[in-house]
Amino acid sequence: MSINVYGYWRSSATWRVRIALQLKGLDFNIVPVHLVRNEQHGDAHLRRNPLGQVPAVEIDGAVLTQSVAILEYLEEAYPDPALLPKDSLDRAYVRQAVEVINSGIQPLQNLDTLRRLQSEYGVERPEWKPWAAHFIHRGFVALETIVAPYAGIYALNDDLTFVDICLIPQVYNAHRFGVDMTEFPTLDRIATAAARLPAFEKAHPDQQPDAQ
Amino acid sequence: MSINVYGYWRSSATWRVRIALQLKGLDFNIVPVHLVRNEQHGDAHLRRNPLGQVPAVEIDGAVLTQSVAILEYLEEAYPDPALLPKDSLDRAYVRQAVEVINSGIQPLQNLDTLRRLQSEYGVERPEWKPWAAHFIHRGFVALETIVAPYAGIYALNDDLTFVDICLIPQVYNAHRFGVDMTEFPTLDRIATAAARLPAFEKAHPDQQPDAQ
Repeated sequence: MSINVYGYWRSSATWRVRIALQLKGLDFNIVPVHLVRNEQHGDAHLRRNPLGQVPAVEIDGAVLTQSVAILEYLEEAYPDPALLPKDSLDRAYVRQAVEVINSGIQPLQNLDTLRRLQSEYGVERPEWKPWAAHFIHRGFVALETIVAPYAGIYALNDDLTFVDICLIPQVYNAHRFGVDMTEFPTLDRIATAAARLPAFEKAHPDQQPDAQ
Repeated sequence: MSINVYGYWRSSATWRVRIALQLKGLDFNIVPVHLVRNEQHGDAHLRRNPLGQVPAVEIDGAVLTQSVAILEYLEEAYPDPALLPKDSLDRAYVRQAVEVINSGIQPLQNLDTLRRLQSEYGVERPEWKPWAAHFIHRGFVALETIVAPYAGIYALNDDLTFVDICLIPQVYNAHRFGVDMTEFPTLDRIATAAARLPAFEKAHPDQQPDAQ
């Protein structure tokens, strides 16, 4: 089996997939797709992902896109170690927290969306920051409330789940866009704990071959 | 068992949950939360959903949010009829198509996001339409490419799945924002077929008690 991850070092969705692959102990090849140079909109990448986004993952003879769909696939195909709990209500909690990040925050502050502010309304790059910070802040206010009652070391007791995988890249973006994490003590504590694990260290953007 | 759906007649995420409940043959109560009057940001609703969005579903003694997490929960707790296929790669296809809509389109054209264009950059309501139409069009270009090879009557052969559930409300929004569906023959054909089913008819916004 060979796994190819077509992605970008700083892409938070690519980062989620790298963490999951590391936690599952699966070998994979990184194939950089340079977002700032627009390689995601080139023909070669559009054949992998018609939406023109990263990551795309080639695995088990298929090309998969959408990081959460990829996480779910990895969990089904490579169940050990588990990154979803057994109980259905616990799983619903995990998927709910994941979607607060995946659909409630990330799409609103990614590069394509910010660029659209410019092309549609002439909003220049220096003015993007408050938009991105607003949506990260709004999402984290909700996520802190949702996660606090369930959290142990990680977002669901002391067990790593999809939530932690999605949280760490979003906290990195929070820092980039100047969101003060002291307002979110549970999220901040979880992110600090998870970041120290070898799987998370290896998946960090700065450790990737295309890091700049 | 009683199920309460806190939502809004025209909310596409609430609509997805109504379709799934209808297809599963589950009884439920509709509790309107009026988005245009901002009831989603009131204390009563924020206790249900700290993100201030709809739907929130009270079920089996728990309050769940995020429509895709709710769909996954319903599938696990009430597996018959199945709305996800058995095969893991087929499931990955379904979840990928779902996320193109759920994270790739919907958050970028919902009311909160459009209102933010105004509050952050002074973009007035008449100028929101090209922004929303752009993201729906972009997502549907990708989704048409992803779905066409797998589609039968519905998005995965002739079996209803989460894809059809998420597609129908997004096609409704496409019409609202002036996106020409003739560019997406597969999606348009699926939406037409699914809309005729009784479960989809009952879940339609116009059939809801809070419809205006």
